[in-house]
Amino acid sequence: MNAFTIAQTEPGRRARLGKLHTAHGTALTPAFMPVGTRGCVKGILPQTLRETGAQIMLSNTYHLLLRPGVDIVESLGGLHRFTAWDGPILTDSGGYQVFSLSSLNRVGEDGVEFASHIDGRPIFLNAEIATRIQNRLGADIIMCFDECTPYPCETERIEKAVERTVRWARQCKESHDNPRQMLFGIIQGGVDLSLRDRCLDALIPMDFDGYAVGGLSVGEGHEAMIRTVAHTAAGLPESKPRYLMGVGMPVDIVAAVRAGVDMFDCVLPSRNGRNGFAFTENGAIRLRNSIHGSDPDPIERDCPCPTCRNFSRSAIRHFFNVGEMLGPILATIHNLTYYQRLMTRIRDRIADGSFGVWSEEFIRTRKPNGIEENES
Amino acid sequence: MNAFTIAQTEPGRRARLGKLHTAHGTALTPAFMPVGTRGCVKGILPQTLRETGAQIMLSNTYHLLLRPGVDIVESLGGLHRFTAWDGPILTDSGGYQVFSLSSLNRVGEDGVEFASHIDGRPIFLNAEIATRIQNRLGADIIMCFDECTPYPCETERIEKAVERTVRWARQCKESHDNPRQMLFGIIQGGVDLSLRDRCLDALIPMDFDGYAVGGLSVGEGHEAMIRTVAHTAAGLPESKPRYLMGVGMPVDIVAAVRAGVDMFDCVLPSRNGRNGFAFTENGAIRLRNSIHGSDPDPIERDCPCPTCRNFSRSAIRHFFNVGEMLGPILATIHNLTYYQRLMTRIRDRIADGSFGVWSEEFIRTRKPNGIEENES
Repeated sequence: MNAFTIAQTEPGRRARLGKLHTAHGTALTPAFMPVGTRGCVKGILPQTLRETGAQIMLSNTYHLLLRPGVDIVESLGGLHRFTAWDGPILTDSGGYQVFSLSSLNRVGEDGVEFASHIDGRPIFLNAEIATRIQNRLGADIIMCFDECTPYPCETERIEKAVERTVRWARQCKESHDNPRQMLFGIIQGGVDLSLRDRCLDALIPMDFDGYAVGGLSVGEGHEAMIRTVAHTAAGLPESKPRYLMGVGMPVDIVAAVRAGVDMFDCVLPSRNGRNGFAFTENGAIRLRNSIHGSDPDPIERDCPCPTCRNFSRSAIRHFFNVGEMLGPILATIHNLTYYQRLMTRIRDRIADGSFGVWSEEFIRTRKPNGIEENES
Repeated sequence: MNAFTIAQTEPGRRARLGKLHTAHGTALTPAFMPVGTRGCVKGILPQTLRETGAQIMLSNTYHLLLRPGVDIVESLGGLHRFTAWDGPILTDSGGYQVFSLSSLNRVGEDGVEFASHIDGRPIFLNAEIATRIQNRLGADIIMCFDECTPYPCETERIEKAVERTVRWARQCKESHDNPRQMLFGIIQGGVDLSLRDRCLDALIPMDFDGYAVGGLSVGEGHEAMIRTVAHTAAGLPESKPRYLMGVGMPVDIVAAVRAGVDMFDCVLPSRNGRNGFAFTENGAIRLRNSIHGSDPDPIERDCPCPTCRNFSRSAIRHFFNVGEMLGPILATIHNLTYYQRLMTRIRDRIADGSFGVWSEEFIRTRKPNGIEENES
């Protein structure tokens, strides 16, 4: 329990196959974690989420803190019971949402005071509180409270965020009080490689159970993201799981696995699904498009998901057109399955030694598409 | 195929246990048919609908005619393929919606011209067209085009509606052109028993595959409804299935089974579920109510549905509160399961000869509650 074992590393390369052992089961890595912001992936039952191949669900501390509140989740027996997801769960610390969603009242060395984006009531968070909250929510993997900078950003501000992130990481480590949970440190530093190094140098001696690369996928683009990830991942200890937060498009994931990343999360498969975009091997399709009006084919012919096994593009388009929630549900199920099948393919290619060649081809052929889709 | 067999009738009573054999399987009766207006029960995957115990799904011709249109459903291979529901399907004729949802331009002996409630375009329907449309949609059971009167209603208007319903029934029978489908006649007549008799006398010689009691649950109340149903059902041939359209609350269903009804449909379990009302043995509960805020119990303790097996009232309330569609989905699943368990109980009680006593007690204890719930 609470260990990471590396089964295989591609000779001469960084991509690796691993197993993340948690109090609620083992996940194969590289792994993609669907996002259940407020305790569920929107519109998806836990049993359906399991059928997509998902192994770990992510939930957002900030949202759960606002509603229903930590007391309720804890009194119900913790997040697993509350969400009915009995596999591994990861919670973020709330830091990202505090800085991106709420009105900040005051950011100081002692913590952050902000106004709830629901009802405006003031809430104070700092490293210790964010950690205690996550201890009580009871996820299997919890994250340090950090400061995520936007893009672009002045060097001085990134520097300050790195210093805070380091100081807060130490406080999180000291406050952490639940041995059934793994605590991950987060490396910040924007796209400034020397600031990433400074953060690495400070956090590695703290010996976290795993390390995340934070502050990316905020507008810097694929090239800058991958350059930063490659540099940062290379500086992380071999033996610990590496998690690239909030990423991303399929091409970003494949490129980051090449850089040695083990874990990912992103709202794209579910959010794009709700908006009528479906991922396929031949690029994204817009399910509302009239060309699907009488199309008897499924979204993707060889996809084993319940959507593709049962529904034509025509029927799914109809559900979107008339405002039936089954449209978003069906597209989300397919997209989540698409992402999990991608991860399975990545793991299979690492296992049989062909990932290097396969991933080069994948990136070469997908990049333009990928970047278009990201903007849609 | 296309037959109705009666397995058992309670000695000295009208309630009966039957089997309705269709081109897509056999349904045990008395049966409750959930409503998938536009090709799906809102928010529910076909596999989930099956898990609730549903045997027959109802779909609305009027809505499917407007969007996506008959051509598309037919070109995709019919309603079963389109909806991914491979069990029996029943379509109504569209008559009810024409008279209740749309702006009528002209009602004549030749048919009805109305404006689509979506885009206002004029559509003409008559008995022949409504039947041909249902032939092409491909449900297992289709309904005659009829005129449903509101409540209260002048006798003269009901009389006229009965005359039209009779004339149209003959035209439907003549137009019906798909031997894989059963065609049901509809008895109208409001709560006027002599007009019901007049409709019965005219339709029974036409020898339909089954008969519906239409025009009820429009505001006449439980007593008047059951009085009318009992009178009408007693006048229908023993050997044909009897379907009470658009009904109803559990107490209405139990009382109508006592009167000899075999089939029901109603939007209540799904619509009430979406609105946060859950049916239980102890009456309806409002899932948004703050008393459920930290309630670790499921909606109903002995309920085997995926909602009750996995989720606390607290979590479901949270999903409703934050606007997650999982709230409506979970409540709908439970309510549909509640209705199917009620039907199973009814069938079990008829089978073991205790339905008479059991149903009296059920009606005596539920009626006040039932009527309250209906109004909420």
